[in-house]
Amino acid sequence: MRKLASDALDQLTLGATLLGTGGGGDPFIAKLMVQQAIEDFGPIDIVDLDELDDSAQLVTVAVVGAPTVIIEKVPSGREFTDAVRALASYMGRKIDAIMPVEVGGMNTLIPLAVAAELGVPCVDADGMRRAFPQIEMTTFTLGGLTSSPMSLADEKGNRVAFETTTNLMGEKLVRGSAMMLGLANALASYPMTVAQAKTAAISGSMQYCSDVGGLLRDVQRQEENAWDRFLEFTEGRIIFEGKIIDVDRRTTTGFARGTVTIEDFADPTRTMRIEIQNELLLAIEDGRPVVTPPDLICMLDFETADPITTETIAYGQRVRILGLPCADEWKRGAWLDVVGPAAFGYDVDYVPLKG
Amino acid sequence: MRKLASDALDQLTLGATLLGTGGGGDPFIAKLMVQQAIEDFGPIDIVDLDELDDSAQLVTVAVVGAPTVIIEKVPSGREFTDAVRALASYMGRKIDAIMPVEVGGMNTLIPLAVAAELGVPCVDADGMRRAFPQIEMTTFTLGGLTSSPMSLADEKGNRVAFETTTNLMGEKLVRGSAMMLGLANALASYPMTVAQAKTAAISGSMQYCSDVGGLLRDVQRQEENAWDRFLEFTEGRIIFEGKIIDVDRRTTTGFARGTVTIEDFADPTRTMRIEIQNELLLAIEDGRPVVTPPDLICMLDFETADPITTETIAYGQRVRILGLPCADEWKRGAWLDVVGPAAFGYDVDYVPLKG
Repeated sequence: MRKLASDALDQLTLGATLLGTGGGGDPFIAKLMVQQAIEDFGPIDIVDLDELDDSAQLVTVAVVGAPTVIIEKVPSGREFTDAVRALASYMGRKIDAIMPVEVGGMNTLIPLAVAAELGVPCVDADGMRRAFPQIEMTTFTLGGLTSSPMSLADEKGNRVAFETTTNLMGEKLVRGSAMMLGLANALASYPMTVAQAKTAAISGSMQYCSDVGGLLRDVQRQEENAWDRFLEFTEGRIIFEGKIIDVDRRTTTGFARGTVTIEDFADPTRTMRIEIQNELLLAIEDGRPVVTPPDLICMLDFETADPITTETIAYGQRVRILGLPCADEWKRGAWLDVVGPAAFGYDVDYVPLKG
Repeated sequence: MRKLASDALDQLTLGATLLGTGGGGDPFIAKLMVQQAIEDFGPIDIVDLDELDDSAQLVTVAVVGAPTVIIEKVPSGREFTDAVRALASYMGRKIDAIMPVEVGGMNTLIPLAVAAELGVPCVDADGMRRAFPQIEMTTFTLGGLTSSPMSLADEKGNRVAFETTTNLMGEKLVRGSAMMLGLANALASYPMTVAQAKTAAISGSMQYCSDVGGLLRDVQRQEENAWDRFLEFTEGRIIFEGKIIDVDRRTTTGFARGTVTIEDFADPTRTMRIEIQNELLLAIEDGRPVVTPPDLICMLDFETADPITTETIAYGQRVRILGLPCADEWKRGAWLDVVGPAAFGYDVDYVPLKG
C-alpha cells in the first residue's frame, strides 16, 4: 500500500491526459476533485491487487458522457459516491476497494477521489490502460466478466440501475440514459472480486500512467534524451508532425465525433487524417492506416509537448502525433471484435504498432 | 371482488381498443395473453380500491414503446412478471395487487394477465382512463405521487431500475432505455399504497371500459338506439364523417408520430386533420381545434364501427370520428401542464368537449 502524494498527482494527471488519447474529459478538473478529497478525507491509499484478499469486492467508477459536455458541466462529486452506494445497496454487498475502469482521461483520477470519500483504497489496475468511448471495451469483457449490475447517477439525485445480458447492451442502455440525464453522469460498474480482477484486469496501469507522465514532463522540460527515454519506455513512435488544416466536429448519439486533418510541415502533399469518437481512434496517411485501435494515438502541441484534447483541437495548431502500443493484456480472445477497428465501424485491418 | 369471465373479456377488449384512441397497441394480442393466463392460473379477481386494506401495496404494469413496433413484436409475457418481481425485490416489499396505469389499449389487459400469474387481484382503477403516449401523463402525477422506483424488463432478461426526481425525467429515461431495448418492453411503475391510490387514481375505469365496450358492441350489432345510448353514456359527440385522403407517418424518438387528413363525405371543402403521437391527440377542422387533449378522439370504421388503430390507418378508409370527454378526475391542479395541448407541443388552447 502506498499513499498518493501531491506531486505524484501532477505526474499522474499529465500521464492520464496523454493516455486519454484526446478524449476521456479533462483530467485537470478531476485533479481538483482529488485534491479536494485529500483535503477533506486525508491521503488516498493505492494498493496492488496482490495486497487485497481474493474475496474482496471491487467496483469501477467513472464519468460517462461526451467530453464536450463534461468540460462544460463539472461533476459535483456527489453523484460518484451516490452511484457506488446505490450499486452496493442494489447488490447488498460492502465495497472494499475502488478501481478505475480506464486509466486515461479524467476517469483515471475520479476513482481516487471516490475512494478517499468512501474510506477505501483505490486499486492500481484497470480495464483499458487508455481511454475508450464505450464501457464494454475492456479487458474485463475479454475475460468474460459482466459489467452488470451497474448504477448510473446524476447530480440531481436521479438514479438508474442496469442488469444486462451482454456488456454491449449495458453500454447501449447506459448511453441512452446518459443522453437523457445530460451526458455527464457517474457510473459504477463491473463489480468483481479481486480474484476475478486478477484474471482480467491490467495490473499496474496507474503506475504506468504515472511513469509515462513523468517521462513526458521530462520532455516538456527539454531534459537530456527525454524523447528517447519516453519512446523506449512506451515502445512508441512519432508518426507525424505538422499543422492542422481541417477540423470537422459533431456530437451525435451521445458521442463527440469528428475528423481532423494535418498537413506535414515540410511536404504539403503529405497529410494525415485522424478519426475521432470521443478519443483519437484511427490515423490514416495517404489512405493507409498507420495507427489503429486499440493502439494509442496521442496528439501533442509541437512546441510545448502538452497533450491536446479533441475539444480544443483548432485550425492552425502545430502538432506532433505519437503512436503508442496498447497494453499486452488486450491481446487475448476476441479482442479485435471488442476494440479492433471494426468495433468502431472502421473498415480497415488492425496494423500492429509493436512487433 | 368479482371474477373476470370470458365474455366480459371480449367486451373489455373492445372498450380498451376504443379508449386506446388509436394507440396503446393492439388489445387483441393482450386478450390472447389474458386468455392464456386464465387457462394457466385460473380466473382473475378484479377488486375495487375499497375492498383492499389501505396499506396494501399496488404497482402498475404496462408495455412501453411504439405501437408500430409492439404490433410486430408480440410480448412473451415473461418480461411483465419479471418487471414486477424486480421492482418488488428493489423495494424489498411484497406486491399485494396489480393496477393498470392506463385503461385504453393493450395496457388495460396486460395487468390482468400479470395479476393472474402472480396470484394477486387486479384493481379496477387506473391513472388515465384512456391511453396516453407518456408515462408521467397520469392523474397519479397530478395527485403528487411519484412513478419511481420503476423497473423495465425485456424478453431477453435485461433489466433497468429507475429512481428519478420527477415523473417527466422518469418518462425520458424509460423511453431512452426502451429505444435501446427494441421498443416493446415491460414497465412496472407507480408503486403506491391503496390509501395513496384512493387520493389520485381514477376508480372504476375497468368497469367504464367494459360498459363502453358493451355499448359499442350494440352499435356494431345495429341494435335499437345503440348510438344514442352510447353517446348518452359517454357524453360524447360524433365530430366528423368522411374519407381518409392523406396519411403521413413517422417513428421518431421512440414514438409513432403522424398526421391524418379526412375529407367530409358530402362537402369536399370540409376537412379534418388529426395529429398522432402513438394516440390520436388533436382534431382540427378548418384551423379550429375541435377535440384537444386530454379529451378522447376515437376513429371508427364507418360501416362496421370497429375502432381503427393508428398503425392500420390507410388512404381511402371511410371513417367516423368521435369526441369523448376525459374522466372528471383529470380536472385538478396543473392538469393542463401534464396532459393539455401544450404538453404535446401543440400551440392551441384546451377546448372542453363537455360543457
